[in-house]
Amino acid sequence: MTGGAPAPPPAAGQAATSGPVHVVGTGLLGASVGLGLAGHGIVVTLEDPSPAAEAVAVQIGAGRRRAPQDADPELVVVAAPPDVTAAVVAEQLRRFPAATVTDLASVKAIILEELAQGGADLERYVGSHPMAGREKTGPAAGTADLFVGRPWVVAANPASRPQAVLRVRELASDLGAHPAYLTAAAHDRAVALVSHVPQVLSSLTARRLTEAEPGALELAGQGLRDMTRIAGSNAGLWSTILAGNGPAVAAVLRLVRADLDRAIAALEPGGQPANLGRTLVELSHLLSGGNAGAERIPGKHGGAKRQFDKVTVMVPDKPGELGRLFQEMGRIGVNLEDLSLEHGAGQLVGLAEIAVAQGAGAALAADLEEQGWRILR
Amino acid sequence: MTGGAPAPPPAAGQAATSGPVHVVGTGLLGASVGLGLAGHGIVVTLEDPSPAAEAVAVQIGAGRRRAPQDADPELVVVAAPPDVTAAVVAEQLRRFPAATVTDLASVKAIILEELAQGGADLERYVGSHPMAGREKTGPAAGTADLFVGRPWVVAANPASRPQAVLRVRELASDLGAHPAYLTAAAHDRAVALVSHVPQVLSSLTARRLTEAEPGALELAGQGLRDMTRIAGSNAGLWSTILAGNGPAVAAVLRLVRADLDRAIAALEPGGQPANLGRTLVELSHLLSGGNAGAERIPGKHGGAKRQFDKVTVMVPDKPGELGRLFQEMGRIGVNLEDLSLEHGAGQLVGLAEIAVAQGAGAALAADLEEQGWRILR
Repeated sequence: MTGGAPAPPPAAGQAATSGPVHVVGTGLLGASVGLGLAGHGIVVTLEDPSPAAEAVAVQIGAGRRRAPQDADPELVVVAAPPDVTAAVVAEQLRRFPAATVTDLASVKAIILEELAQGGADLERYVGSHPMAGREKTGPAAGTADLFVGRPWVVAANPASRPQAVLRVRELASDLGAHPAYLTAAAHDRAVALVSHVPQVLSSLTARRLTEAEPGALELAGQGLRDMTRIAGSNAGLWSTILAGNGPAVAAVLRLVRADLDRAIAALEPGGQPANLGRTLVELSHLLSGGNAGAERIPGKHGGAKRQFDKVTVMVPDKPGELGRLFQEMGRIGVNLEDLSLEHGAGQLVGLAEIAVAQGAGAALAADLEEQGWRILR
Repeated sequence: MTGGAPAPPPAAGQAATSGPVHVVGTGLLGASVGLGLAGHGIVVTLEDPSPAAEAVAVQIGAGRRRAPQDADPELVVVAAPPDVTAAVVAEQLRRFPAATVTDLASVKAIILEELAQGGADLERYVGSHPMAGREKTGPAAGTADLFVGRPWVVAANPASRPQAVLRVRELASDLGAHPAYLTAAAHDRAVALVSHVPQVLSSLTARRLTEAEPGALELAGQGLRDMTRIAGSNAGLWSTILAGNGPAVAAVLRLVRADLDRAIAALEPGGQPANLGRTLVELSHLLSGGNAGAERIPGKHGGAKRQFDKVTVMVPDKPGELGRLFQEMGRIGVNLEDLSLEHGAGQLVGLAEIAVAQGAGAALAADLEEQGWRILR
């Protein structure tokens, strides 16, 4: 790893947060915050409107219930559904007049607006949003590692005190996340673009498959699978997330709609010779824009995309073959950078695409070939 | 492997095709057909308007140039760009009055229509479309294995002779592909749905990223990466594919546009309490449709989705760690069904999601944990 690699998460006991920290809402995120802080020896107290969720969180070691004689917390973390977050934040600001209060909701501007309208003490409020999650939900799925290596947006408002911002930044760092500083509005525009709009378009692509004719879906390849993976997400939860960021999501979707109109207009005359030139120029323009946008997504270390050698190996789809390939690669000791597996519908074999450092691909391919593996060149 | 598994591809010399086969167009697909047939000992002759492409195909063993004294082929395979395919097919039907002629273009109805209008002998024409491809193009990327395990659409027309259909079916089977029988129109609707529309929507999603504000793309996660992977595809080639299937693609895109209008209308009032209920119901309806569509995509063996146990392992992002995990799994001898790696932007660690047979997950997790790996539960 080069010198540009991020620092490792703080070891147990090396946290900047002193606590106590009070966590309101003990679902996946709240329980994970509690577990991570408790691992540093910080005092964590918990509450949840569901006694069952609270009991599970206590049981797994995410913290303990608040007792009447407990000192006021230094920091309150509100990990509630987005539609109740503002009310809970306002209540906690009133309840603990010296505490910094943050929330973890996936939308930020609407919550800030509601707090401002309600006259909340915005000096002690700093919104935040850890970009982490799992397919599972609930406290039992909580883990101290949930935030490690993930971006954590710290969205201060103009009234936020520097000390309050620092506390939230330290919370993110103590849990191993990478703080990113954005205003509430910039956060909402950013997540609309990189998360909410992709969710809508994945769902709308998948929705069309409900009308597929017999035999059609047997032609599906890896492209469709990738495009529709997030279409499997929880519809209820995502409706709330999207509704909370309505204006920002709608703004991007209107631009997508304008592009879609252009694509439909270009496609409708089809491949008729008279229109073919115009059709091709228009489609190529739209698709090239997609090339340029995809190129901007940072690589796995948040920097520019790194260039790798790629070696594609055919893996017979029978028990143990993939394990045998892994064993082989372990033996060769190749420094694997990435790996993806592709299985088409009805496929007898899979393709494993192995990414290694530039210059190392040829030797790996030769070595695997010598051991009897078939390499796609 | 259960009894439902597809048969292995025919061993060398066990092909049903007798040949000779003439391949017109020696890019990736044509060269791969030649290599696959030559591997069965079938006589393959080649031609390409580019002398360089033809020379490379001959050099890699995909066949030899046609000589004037050669017998007429039994089967002609036209592997040309979609916009010239009909003309080349018509020419080959005239040139070899007893041969069956097929093509490999990714659109079928427009070619059939053009052939019918030109008065071609449709009795000997059977269109086809192997659902295979690679990121690389050109004859040097050709491989005898390209079609193994892939669907290969055989699109007979009403005039096609049974003997001609049989020859194309045998071609697909001899190359290890799975023949699928669809009319030209049904084929075009199916690929619009599972391939062409997803390409357009991936590109339009990615195109919006060109306008991202500073800091926004650092929040990108695996969902955006999956959604925009195919947005990196060749814009020129895809413009031709989409234009050739214009009416079918436009028909699906118009339905997507109607859904998009519903989403925008639902989102615009945003999370305002007065409209919230209607917004949530409408969004939830659209997203649930996406759930249902995604659920219909067949699993990797073309049947119903199989249920696996999934074990998620945290892999420290330093040299050799992934290799060490593979070595470990090889040692354990677990029968791996699938594997996906996730790296967020700026991430210090990666998550490896390992799919194994139902019931085998707990033991694997315990075994890995014992060896010091961290398991996300």
